[in-house]
Amino acid sequence: MAEPSRYRHDQLHAFCCDVFRSLGVSAEDAGCVTGCLLSAELRGVDSHGLVRLPVYARRIVAGVVNAHPSMRFDRVAPSVMLADGDNGLGAVVGVQAMHKAIELAETTGVGIVGVRRSNHFGAASFYVEEAVREGLIGFAITNAPPNMAPFGGRERFLGTNPVAIAIPAGKEPPLIFDASTSVVARGKIIVAAQTGTAIPEGWAVDPEGRPTTDARQALAGAVLPFGGPKGSAISFIIDILCGVLTGAAFATKLNTLENLGAEQNLGHVLAAMRTDLFLPADVFRSRMDEIINLLKSSPPAEGVGRVLAPGELERRNECANRRDGIAISPELVSRLRQLGGELGVEFPPPTGCELESQPQRQTLFCERYETR
Amino acid sequence: MAEPSRYRHDQLHAFCCDVFRSLGVSAEDAGCVTGCLLSAELRGVDSHGLVRLPVYARRIVAGVVNAHPSMRFDRVAPSVMLADGDNGLGAVVGVQAMHKAIELAETTGVGIVGVRRSNHFGAASFYVEEAVREGLIGFAITNAPPNMAPFGGRERFLGTNPVAIAIPAGKEPPLIFDASTSVVARGKIIVAAQTGTAIPEGWAVDPEGRPTTDARQALAGAVLPFGGPKGSAISFIIDILCGVLTGAAFATKLNTLENLGAEQNLGHVLAAMRTDLFLPADVFRSRMDEIINLLKSSPPAEGVGRVLAPGELERRNECANRRDGIAISPELVSRLRQLGGELGVEFPPPTGCELESQPQRQTLFCERYETR
Repeated sequence: MAEPSRYRHDQLHAFCCDVFRSLGVSAEDAGCVTGCLLSAELRGVDSHGLVRLPVYARRIVAGVVNAHPSMRFDRVAPSVMLADGDNGLGAVVGVQAMHKAIELAETTGVGIVGVRRSNHFGAASFYVEEAVREGLIGFAITNAPPNMAPFGGRERFLGTNPVAIAIPAGKEPPLIFDASTSVVARGKIIVAAQTGTAIPEGWAVDPEGRPTTDARQALAGAVLPFGGPKGSAISFIIDILCGVLTGAAFATKLNTLENLGAEQNLGHVLAAMRTDLFLPADVFRSRMDEIINLLKSSPPAEGVGRVLAPGELERRNECANRRDGIAISPELVSRLRQLGGELGVEFPPPTGCELESQPQRQTLFCERYETR
Repeated sequence: MAEPSRYRHDQLHAFCCDVFRSLGVSAEDAGCVTGCLLSAELRGVDSHGLVRLPVYARRIVAGVVNAHPSMRFDRVAPSVMLADGDNGLGAVVGVQAMHKAIELAETTGVGIVGVRRSNHFGAASFYVEEAVREGLIGFAITNAPPNMAPFGGRERFLGTNPVAIAIPAGKEPPLIFDASTSVVARGKIIVAAQTGTAIPEGWAVDPEGRPTTDARQALAGAVLPFGGPKGSAISFIIDILCGVLTGAAFATKLNTLENLGAEQNLGHVLAAMRTDLFLPADVFRSRMDEIINLLKSSPPAEGVGRVLAPGELERRNECANRRDGIAISPELVSRLRQLGGELGVEFPPPTGCELESQPQRQTLFCERYETR
């Protein structure tokens, strides 16, 4: 495969925004969903980055995503709201819901927002970062269309239902955890099938539910939950909380992103909590610094440089990608160029020089912590 | 090893209660902690059952657990309380805290109780079952002394920090999930070392942090988190929420159960939530039945009879053990007999006949669901 070129994040941001604007999305909402996709690219999580832009655009064109959602919020308890996403873009719905959770947390200590009638919301880290910016603990889960076999099963039943948690610290960067409940992203199996490489046992099962190392058999079958029965149960519970409890769709009734004939009706739960409920905020922050430093100084295994804190790798990626540009594969560039051509939006040239810092969304990390 | 004999759960309950009574624990508190240990035995989770009774007793005798705790609760937000466990037995502290979370949930929709100055609280399922009995969703996490290497590390840093979640259904039994964040209970490695059996790769590392299948090397090293970096991060976050946030001890500062010279100062978070916040309760319950039945009817993998719902195996164990008695190894029987001898409490004889049903704590499962 050809080498990827690097692109300035601010120019990719402008391109992505213009695509949404050309589809009738408001400037504010276009900035929001673009921020979500670019945040994933910056963090090196390219499975949730610009690779999703074409299908997001096609869903708007097909009329199965509402480009002008009018969300409704009902306060159902002192610290709890129900949100109806009005079938808007997932990032637009998710950010509004997280902002309500933040407001509730600021006034009542904790805020929990259950969301129904939403869509694919990209990387869950994007939402919990909103909470941590305000000095709060953030929590985000979403359900997703069936892609995984449950433990003991062979057919797709569970989504890769992710969970993200962000916790502010003091001098240390905030802890940002974001993980799907699958062993591995399906995208890695697609790449292995394309290159004819074997996959490790434990990633997926074939259509009969047998463990397989054949990537093509794995794609015909199903990916597996992380951690065997434990991850399978966690994924199932996320579907219950996001789908069954909120009134969204769940399990095999969730429509895929690629099905342009139907709404998804995904559900999310977004929550925020103050850090000073049990101890003064400054005491909490110094205790966070202490546990993070204890973890980082825990002796590494043979061949490992240092034990990493959750999210540390993605923070390093973000700092490097802001500075050096984001690597995009030639195949994705050509898809994005084609999309831009259809909508009259020009795709930017690759970067050949140092980026000046023009962040569209203030980074949580690089200015304060880059030298660490 | 000699075959285990079976003992009536009601007689084991009486023995265990009498042990605590003889140490000056009130009848109510003795019943509570006994209920916790017996609940684990009934569910087949013997690592959290009577095997813990001798060390619980020794800690009271040594004066590092308070037999007469006077818990303090502070309402810190409409739906949040801070609890000081006054160094009481973990189960006594945990149940009182969960009951406060239930009260908060009943009046404000959701209840969250952060607990400091507590002790080993046994199986986390015990607490969430209290919530589900009241028709609520229950959530319980606790930290624990260091036993696991973090991902990329080689020394014990993380506890096996468990998470339990219980969700009521309609005609189906409630879903009860309870899992440690380790790949496997350390007890299984102890048994392998005793019998000279190899352990599967991935369970543990040796003192240099290298994967090992030698059980003795594993015991000298550390067990591993489930699900690699994901489980490691989840375990770390549980320690942050239970220890760093609440004001309890955390990470390598937590004292082990076996150290009779120091208080543990464990922390827990117990939470409950109403199921009718977003949908009418009966709609929620029928949606729960629907997703559970969808899961159970998902096609099984080759060699698997049926996909199980979380907690289904433990429910089957509970029904069988209530009926047939609880199997206790001769080695544990002799330790319990010795403990009873020291305290003037007689250990019961093994059962030779059918048990009559005399449950000490009403079962959530057997009466209604045993035939399923």
